[in-house]
Amino acid sequence: MRVLGIDPGLARTGWGVIDKDERNGRLRVSESGCLVTEAETGLTERLNQLSEELDGLLRRVRPDEVAIEELYFSKASRTAASVGHARGVILLTLSKSSLQVYEYNPRRIKIALTGYGSADKSQMQRMTQTLLNLPTLPKPDDVADALAVALCHIHTAPLARSTARSAGGRP
Amino acid sequence: MRVLGIDPGLARTGWGVIDKDERNGRLRVSESGCLVTEAETGLTERLNQLSEELDGLLRRVRPDEVAIEELYFSKASRTAASVGHARGVILLTLSKSSLQVYEYNPRRIKIALTGYGSADKSQMQRMTQTLLNLPTLPKPDDVADALAVALCHIHTAPLARSTARSAGGRP
Repeated sequence: MRVLGIDPGLARTGWGVIDKDERNGRLRVSESGCLVTEAETGLTERLNQLSEELDGLLRRVRPDEVAIEELYFSKASRTAASVGHARGVILLTLSKSSLQVYEYNPRRIKIALTGYGSADKSQMQRMTQTLLNLPTLPKPDDVADALAVALCHIHTAPLARSTARSAGGRP
Repeated sequence: MRVLGIDPGLARTGWGVIDKDERNGRLRVSESGCLVTEAETGLTERLNQLSEELDGLLRRVRPDEVAIEELYFSKASRTAASVGHARGVILLTLSKSSLQVYEYNPRRIKIALTGYGSADKSQMQRMTQTLLNLPTLPKPDDVADALAVALCHIHTAPLARSTARSAGGRP
């Protein structure tokens, strides 16, 4: 099974692809990266660029399932609006590809990886490194967060799959 | 010239079409309405529905230009995120139609219509009624706001057009 994890953002959208070998359960990061849009570019153009680059990524890596971070609501309203624009476009682009999308909030991702809902960034990164058998801590933060949401999905997928609705169901 | 005004929202996106007769400057509301999505529906499905209905609306009314409200940042972060999701999808859908999009913040819309940046809702609705020669106050609020942003664009369009960049430029 191939899972694409996404940490949405307007300036930077982190992504990571994890392959799970169904015979032995082994996990491997196939690739990861960041979709970047420049602040000087107009908003509509940035959203268009994000959508097209994500579409290209989906065609290239062909994930079986996609896991995406939910918005963290204590963020400032300006940040929430900016991430919201990007996240709306990402969800729409994913749904056009008929992909099953699973959403997880930050607390749930922390619990899935560390057993602790208030785990800090370095605890999360160390756990991601261990679970994925990476030589170093996952970097940058957007990619680390994308790998973490993909891992969270892989850990909770059997339950999620049984309850999710098609294209956008919340596990 | 035909201008489509949009007041973006996830649950309700108000829209209004104003035709300006270039010979005598007369304005006329051609149609108006609301794109509605239900709270019980999954987020991705709501965004998909919003995009498809807007796309159908664009094909039907064929506006020359589109004016859309900017986000009002003092809103709560949950509201900002929700409107942000919808607004991102709307901007993307408009850009796929190669339409010129103009964004106006609430204060600028108020100044364009009443000369006063802190005008209240009833002042705005009375001015919209007067400028568009409507028999009654424009209703509901989403439609009134959509007509107001279209009117703001019509009033400031000559300047806006000279400075805007293609598809998403800010006047």
